[in-house]
Amino acid sequence: MAQARKRVVIVGGGFAGLNAAKVLGNLPELELVLVDRRNYHLFQPLLYQVAMAGLSPADIARPIRTLLSGHRNLRVIQGQVDGIDVCARKVSGDFGQLDYDYLLLATGAQHAYFGNEAWEPHAPGLKTLEQATEIRRRVLTAFEKAERTDDPEERKRQLTFAIVGGGPTGVELAGAIGEMSRFTLARDFRNVDPKLTRVILIEAGERILPSFDAAMTARATRDLETLGVQVWTRSRVTSIDDEGLSVGEERLATATVLWAAGVRASGLGEQLPAERDRVGRVKVEGDLSIAGHPEVFVLGDLALVLDHDGKPLPGVAPVALQQGRHVGRLIESELKGKARAPFRYLDKGQMATIGRSRAIVDAPGLRLRGWLAWAAWLLIHIYYLSGFRNRLLVLIQWAFSYVTFGRGARLIVEKGWRSYPDDEPGSKDEAA
Amino acid sequence: MAQARKRVVIVGGGFAGLNAAKVLGNLPELELVLVDRRNYHLFQPLLYQVAMAGLSPADIARPIRTLLSGHRNLRVIQGQVDGIDVCARKVSGDFGQLDYDYLLLATGAQHAYFGNEAWEPHAPGLKTLEQATEIRRRVLTAFEKAERTDDPEERKRQLTFAIVGGGPTGVELAGAIGEMSRFTLARDFRNVDPKLTRVILIEAGERILPSFDAAMTARATRDLETLGVQVWTRSRVTSIDDEGLSVGEERLATATVLWAAGVRASGLGEQLPAERDRVGRVKVEGDLSIAGHPEVFVLGDLALVLDHDGKPLPGVAPVALQQGRHVGRLIESELKGKARAPFRYLDKGQMATIGRSRAIVDAPGLRLRGWLAWAAWLLIHIYYLSGFRNRLLVLIQWAFSYVTFGRGARLIVEKGWRSYPDDEPGSKDEAA
Repeated sequence: MAQARKRVVIVGGGFAGLNAAKVLGNLPELELVLVDRRNYHLFQPLLYQVAMAGLSPADIARPIRTLLSGHRNLRVIQGQVDGIDVCARKVSGDFGQLDYDYLLLATGAQHAYFGNEAWEPHAPGLKTLEQATEIRRRVLTAFEKAERTDDPEERKRQLTFAIVGGGPTGVELAGAIGEMSRFTLARDFRNVDPKLTRVILIEAGERILPSFDAAMTARATRDLETLGVQVWTRSRVTSIDDEGLSVGEERLATATVLWAAGVRASGLGEQLPAERDRVGRVKVEGDLSIAGHPEVFVLGDLALVLDHDGKPLPGVAPVALQQGRHVGRLIESELKGKARAPFRYLDKGQMATIGRSRAIVDAPGLRLRGWLAWAAWLLIHIYYLSGFRNRLLVLIQWAFSYVTFGRGARLIVEKGWRSYPDDEPGSKDEAA
Repeated sequence: MAQARKRVVIVGGGFAGLNAAKVLGNLPELELVLVDRRNYHLFQPLLYQVAMAGLSPADIARPIRTLLSGHRNLRVIQGQVDGIDVCARKVSGDFGQLDYDYLLLATGAQHAYFGNEAWEPHAPGLKTLEQATEIRRRVLTAFEKAERTDDPEERKRQLTFAIVGGGPTGVELAGAIGEMSRFTLARDFRNVDPKLTRVILIEAGERILPSFDAAMTARATRDLETLGVQVWTRSRVTSIDDEGLSVGEERLATATVLWAAGVRASGLGEQLPAERDRVGRVKVEGDLSIAGHPEVFVLGDLALVLDHDGKPLPGVAPVALQQGRHVGRLIESELKGKARAPFRYLDKGQMATIGRSRAIVDAPGLRLRGWLAWAAWLLIHIYYLSGFRNRLLVLIQWAFSYVTFGRGARLIVEKGWRSYPDDEPGSKDEAA
C-alpha cells in the first residue's frame, strides 16, 4: 500500500537543498520535508566578510522557514540526521524517523586538517557563522593586545597574521586583513604602527589561485602585495602551535593563524552504499543519483561530479545551486513519466576579490581585473543574495564602508554569556 | 616631581565613561586613558531588540576606539581592571599598572539573582551582547522544538515563555515575544499553532512598571494582554529548574525563563573606601566623588545618587550620560581654578515600549500612550544612537520590520565553533 503522496526528504538547507526545495515546493502532489541542523540558510560566498567585520551574521543568513514559507507542501525540521537506511528508505535523527520515496542528500563540507586535527584550536577554518565570529574575535583581539603590550617582540607577534591556503578564501582573508590594518585600524590605535602589520599567505602549491589562469594569479599576487600581504608559495606548513607556525625549518612567530587549506565532505556520505574519494565526496551517476539507488541523490559539496575534462567540479555555490534545480526538475519530469536527463554544469566563470576595490573575474569570453572586476563581483553577489530581504541593507553597508574605510561589525564578542561563570565550561579561551 | 600632564583614568566605556571622555578629550593639557574589558560601547536601551532578533549586535555596538578616535590625547586600552589603590593613586589589571590624578569609575551593573545564583543557567539575564544572543537562541530554539515534537505536553512547555521581572526590560521582552509568536513566526511553522503560545510576565510587586504612573501601568498591562501576554503580579518566583518554575505552590512548565528581576552594581566598587548599598552601589558626594577622595569619581549604574525626594536615581542611560558630562566639565573647571558644582539630574522622563506600535511615555508635562508614544520612543532612540554610523541602517531595518512583520536576525547561533568538538568544553548546551 503506497502513501497517498510521495515524500521527498531533503537533508541540508544550503544552495543545493534550498534550490531543490524551491522547485519541488511547487508540486502539490509531493510531500516535502527539509531537515537542517541550523535554522538558517547561509550565503557562504560572503562568510569571509563576517569574519573580517564588514558584515553581521544576519546580513548573510536567513531562516530556512522564511525563505520557503510560500510552499505549503513543505515542512522544515531543525534537526540532526545521523542514520540513513537506503534499503528501508528511512532517515533517522534527533527528530525521530522519516520515510522517504526520494532522498536528496546535500550536507556539504567542513574544513579539514587531514591528520593534523590538533591544529584546529590554533588555526580556525571558515565554514560556519560561529567560526567567522571566532576569526573576527581573534583578529581584532590581536590588534588590542599589540596596542597594550610594551614588549616589541610580542607586539610583532600579535601583528603577524598567517593564512594557510591560497585558494579564493585564503586570498580574500589575506586581502581583507591587509586592508583593515592599513586603513580602518590605523586611525584608531596609538601605540601600533600599521606598517608593522605583516600578513602572510602560505600556499603549498606552485601558485595561489591555481584554478585561475596564470596571468590572473600574477595580477592577484601583485594586488595582495599592494595591501602589504606577503605571498609564500611552495611552502608547506609542518606545525602550528600556541606561539606560531613552522614551514619546514623556518619558524614564524604569529598569534593568529587562519586555515583555508582544505575541506572534507560531510560524514553523512559514509552511510551510503557508494564509493567516495579521499576527501569523502560521494561518487554519483550522471543524473546525480547513486549507483543502484535511483531514488537517492547526492548534491553540492558532498557530491563528486567530474566535468568533461575528468576534473571534479569545484565546491562552489553555482555548482550546488544548479544541481539542486536539476534534481528538482528531474523528479518533476519523472512524476510525469519522462526519462531522466543527466546533469550538465553551465560554467559561468569564477571570481575572487582582493580588498575593497580589486578582484579578478575569469568567465567564458570575459576576463576582468582591478576595479571593473570588483564592481562585477559586487553586483553578482548582491544579485545572488536574492530571496534575502537584506540585499538593500548589505548594499548600504558596503557603500558606507567604501566611503569611510570603516568596518561596521568590529565587535569582539566572547563565547560565554554568564555573569557567574565559575562553573561554566567554555567561557575561557582555550587557545589564546 | 609631578607629571608633565595630569592623567585621568576612566574605567568603563558605557554611557557615563564615554561622555566623560568626550568632554575631557578636548583638553590637551590632560592625558586620558579609557580602560574597558570590551572593545565596544553598547547602546543598552536597544539590547532587548538583539535578544528578540530584530537587530544585529553590530547595529547597537561600536568600537570605543572609533567613537573616540578624534581625541588625540586619549588612549583606549582593552583590559580588565582588578585592583584600585586610592592611596597610591593606581589602578592595576591584566594590562599592568596605571597611575592617575583623577579616576572615574563607571563599570555599571550586571543582572543578579540575590542568593539564587543557581538559577542563572535556567534563566539568563539581559545585560551583555552574549546574553542577548543566548536569549535569542533559546527563544527561537523553543519554537523549533515545539514544531518538531509530537508530544502535546512537551509542545505546550516549549511554547510557554516566562519573564521574571516587570520593569521596562521585562515588559519589552514579553511584548516582543508575544508579537513574534502571533505575527512573525505564525506564517513559517506548520505544526505549531501560535494561539498555543503563552507568554507570562511575573512580577513580585503590586504592579508592573512601578516607576510609572498607575494609569500608565494599566494601559501597558492592557497593551500586553492584546499581544497575548498574561501579567501575574504579586507573584514571587520560588524556584527555577530545567523543567520550569514555581510561584509558591503553583508550578509552571516552561522551557524558557528570562530574568529581568534585578541588577547588582559591578564588584569593582568594593575596592573603594566608601559605603555601598545592598545592591553594591557606591555612595557618593554631591559632586559624584567619594568621601575623602575628591580625585575619585563614581558614575552611572555603579553610583548611588539620591534625587530631591531621597529616592535613588534609576540605572538608566540618561542618568549615566549626564553624570559623565558633569564630571568631565567639573574637571575642566577645576583645572581653571574654579570651584566644583554639584550634580543635578535633569529628568526628561521615562518610556517603555510594548511590541511594534505601542509604548508609554511619562515626561514632565507630557504623557503619551499608544502609537504616538511609540513614534516618540523610536525617534528618541534613533537620535541617541548618535555617533553611530548605523543610525540609518537601524532605521531602515525597523522600517522593513514594521511593514513586513519580519525579524531580520532570526539566527540560532551556537556557542562552540569547532568542527571536531570532542574535546571542546562549552559546545554543549548545559541547560536545554
